[in-house]
Amino acid sequence: MTLGQLAQAVGARVAADQAGNRVSRVSTLDSAGPEALTFLADERYLERLRASHAGAVLLCEQHVAESPVPCLVCDNPHAAFARAAALLHPAKRPPPGIHPSAVVDAGAHVDPAAHIGALAVVGQGCRIGAGAIVGPGCVLLDDVELGEGVWLVARVTVGPDCRIGARTQIHPGVVIGADGFGLASDDGRWLKVPQLGRVILGEDVEIGANTTIDRGAIEDTILGDGVKIDNLVQVAHNVKIGDHTAIAACAGIAGSAQIGAYCTIGGGVGIAGHLRLVDHVHVTGMSLVARSLDEAGAYSSSMPAQPMRSWQRNAARFRHLDEMAKELKRLEEQSRNDHGDNS
Amino acid sequence: MTLGQLAQAVGARVAADQAGNRVSRVSTLDSAGPEALTFLADERYLERLRASHAGAVLLCEQHVAESPVPCLVCDNPHAAFARAAALLHPAKRPPPGIHPSAVVDAGAHVDPAAHIGALAVVGQGCRIGAGAIVGPGCVLLDDVELGEGVWLVARVTVGPDCRIGARTQIHPGVVIGADGFGLASDDGRWLKVPQLGRVILGEDVEIGANTTIDRGAIEDTILGDGVKIDNLVQVAHNVKIGDHTAIAACAGIAGSAQIGAYCTIGGGVGIAGHLRLVDHVHVTGMSLVARSLDEAGAYSSSMPAQPMRSWQRNAARFRHLDEMAKELKRLEEQSRNDHGDNS
Amino acid sequence: MTLGQLAQAVGARVAADQAGNRVSRVSTLDSAGPEALTFLADERYLERLRASHAGAVLLCEQHVAESPVPCLVCDNPHAAFARAAALLHPAKRPPPGIHPSAVVDAGAHVDPAAHIGALAVVGQGCRIGAGAIVGPGCVLLDDVELGEGVWLVARVTVGPDCRIGARTQIHPGVVIGADGFGLASDDGRWLKVPQLGRVILGEDVEIGANTTIDRGAIEDTILGDGVKIDNLVQVAHNVKIGDHTAIAACAGIAGSAQIGAYCTIGGGVGIAGHLRLVDHVHVTGMSLVARSLDEAGAYSSSMPAQPMRSWQRNAARFRHLDEMAKELKRLEEQSRNDHGDNS
Repeated sequence: MTLGQLAQAVGARVAADQAGNRVSRVSTLDSAGPEALTFLADERYLERLRASHAGAVLLCEQHVAESPVPCLVCDNPHAAFARAAALLHPAKRPPPGIHPSAVVDAGAHVDPAAHIGALAVVGQGCRIGAGAIVGPGCVLLDDVELGEGVWLVARVTVGPDCRIGARTQIHPGVVIGADGFGLASDDGRWLKVPQLGRVILGEDVEIGANTTIDRGAIEDTILGDGVKIDNLVQVAHNVKIGDHTAIAACAGIAGSAQIGAYCTIGGGVGIAGHLRLVDHVHVTGMSLVARSLDEAGAYSSSMPAQPMRSWQRNAARFRHLDEMAKELKRLEEQSRNDHGDNS
Repeated sequence: MTLGQLAQAVGARVAADQAGNRVSRVSTLDSAGPEALTFLADERYLERLRASHAGAVLLCEQHVAESPVPCLVCDNPHAAFARAAALLHPAKRPPPGIHPSAVVDAGAHVDPAAHIGALAVVGQGCRIGAGAIVGPGCVLLDDVELGEGVWLVARVTVGPDCRIGARTQIHPGVVIGADGFGLASDDGRWLKVPQLGRVILGEDVEIGANTTIDRGAIEDTILGDGVKIDNLVQVAHNVKIGDHTAIAACAGIAGSAQIGAYCTIGGGVGIAGHLRLVDHVHVTGMSLVARSLDEAGAYSSSMPAQPMRSWQRNAARFRHLDEMAKELKRLEEQSRNDHGDNS
Repeated sequence: MTLGQLAQAVGARVAADQAGNRVSRVSTLDSAGPEALTFLADERYLERLRASHAGAVLLCEQHVAESPVPCLVCDNPHAAFARAAALLHPAKRPPPGIHPSAVVDAGAHVDPAAHIGALAVVGQGCRIGAGAIVGPGCVLLDDVELGEGVWLVARVTVGPDCRIGARTQIHPGVVIGADGFGLASDDGRWLKVPQLGRVILGEDVEIGANTTIDRGAIEDTILGDGVKIDNLVQVAHNVKIGDHTAIAACAGIAGSAQIGAYCTIGGGVGIAGHLRLVDHVHVTGMSLVARSLDEAGAYSSSMPAQPMRSWQRNAARFRHLDEMAKELKRLEEQSRNDHGDNS
């Protein structure tokens, strides 16, 4: 593509005498050769920009002077890069049709413009929208609905009655709509509470590999539009997640938690059950959210590693922190008395 | 079903003039209409009870006066609700038979009353009990035994020689009996130690989606009866878990740990290897159990998130906690000397 | 096998008059009968050695006198045991050939000495090396390359263009080469950044069940030779892991992190993105590595559980640690002043 075509497509400006230059792929600042487009989104990489041999670079107005190569100037180079990369490297979607090895129930409805891959299973009553892809090895149990353009990459499982909104992409190993962890204690033993709700995923959602999203106990587990979830995340029954919230890998959201829109949840974070987080809450990696958060903002209980010896000394003290606090208070009072006496 | 039938089935009492009323499904206190049964198990929801339009509600004697709708009175409304929900919404178990697309080894024994789903694989020497279900996409490697009524929902993998007790239910993506992480260091390189044990699951166990339970190294990994495990939990080789213990999502149990019966392990908890936890131990979410626990009771190292700025100030101090403790001790001694001098 | 044969194979010494003794399997110190080989690698088990009825025991010179049974003497009994166990219990590798139920694209190249299992999918352009095993239910998307002797046990997914080095073993449920979590913020919404890199696994790697290793964003995600990863680990896009590093279960490595060679990463550890850990770094379980580590050694932020009441008292104080530190400083200064005044 020419830089002029790309600039128009991603909303950038390019010098007229460079608009006819061509690039064929994207690359990093370091590795890009004259056939590649790259980008600068972080000032820390200015040095790399100065040494770049790219065919063109997406950047902000303020960095144009630093660039030794043709510039595509825009306000948000990272977003423009995402769009340009999608144009230069379009995803290979398989063509419509049902692979002969797939097992599609006679009572399922598959749009003629959908693709059902090798050795996939599509249960009774499923409805697969136009342009949807059910990749190889996927299993859709009964009465699942996939919207237009949904893409289940491979080996995804979707439980009965779940609904997946248009253009949502789900990566291998994901399990949507397994039973939640619903147990009633009965004289020390556990009775299973039937899990009768569904999972409802919005449009333009993305779910990372081996993530699990449980069906609701009675009502539904619901993820809004544009929600992005990384790999190995647990979303328990009855959870609600607002639009455009992103959750990084290995996080766990306990039952009936409600997370607002435009939140970011760091990797390995735990969110306790039955809490409510308002919109625009940001939680740093490996923190535990143990109460509702009623104000937007950043929250943390991340505890960074130290060299083991000093850590262990500090952790040993932590086990006596309450006593330390009491002793400190005693000294404080004594000091007040002493200096009161002296005054 | 009539309230009278339900009351009898779940061990509740109902007023004689309401025993003929009918309900057809369960619902929440808020959403239940006159066709639905609901329950009250937590006093925090009394307000919702007072506003409920349910057909009937399961509750304790002490809350009967608060209910505007017919009552089913019992000692444990949550357990009674679990039983009632199972009656009103029986699980749809597929009928006996082997799907033509399944690959069942000629040397496997499948009970005529078992179901083998589409595109499942059943290896040589497997024994599948009456009423067992091997859902679509499951893979049983050689010599696996499933007890009566076992239900592998879909896409479950079971490694060679593993044994699964009667009525155990396993959700999609679970891997039972993969090799444990057995490594011997050999001049800085790792040698694989063959993993020769099995996994033995008790009866009435439930295992959540994408959980992994490794085979023993030499002896077996063993889970007792009624053990309930949530999603994305890791159970390493040689672990033993006592009857009726429950483990929430994202927990990890390291090799050769022994967990007692009737324990509850919170979400994201880590339990170090070669430890022993007695019966009735309860560990709060995201704690790390780093030594054996010889007494029943609750344990924690859960660290709840704060607004980021105050957290960071505190965490920075933590890195110097040992120095703080020493300084505090110095002041203490000085204070003792001063007041000794003064006395 | 005779003890003489085993001793020679694993590099141990055995008394001449015992070299003809035979053992047929391995076992633990406690359980081994006269037909079994066992080992002693840890002095804590000396008591068990003294009570052992094994046919033979692998141990160090210094413990020979304690053994009531024939000894195979060597420097590293655990490594020798690993080798002996592999000889006595050779892994059952399925024979070459393509199962008739597998779906192998006409454009794939499968070595005649490779095995493709039941209901596996091998995409266009794949190249499967001699002796490689693609177990039942595996899905290889297009252009995957497996080196000689690679073993995908069952239900493994490998994304397009990924490369897996010789003799690498991958356990069920693993997802290699799913898209990384690449998002660009665009007015509060998330734009997907196409993930164009590959995953390159070295030789003799082992990957545990349900672990996920994302493809690179532009360049590749690379794991060196002999890397060993446990179950349910997340390795994000662009991560590099040096040779012979081991990572325990439930750890999460964020994007573009670089981990050196010969490191050990404990269970549940989180490593933040864009960091660099040098060789020979060791991180204890459930720690968070939040900055680069430029020196070899052990690091920790592991916080062990206490009885809940004392933990909660300490954690409550932690929320005011900064204030405590300030008050302590104030007392210190006052003390200095007081004693300065007095001097």
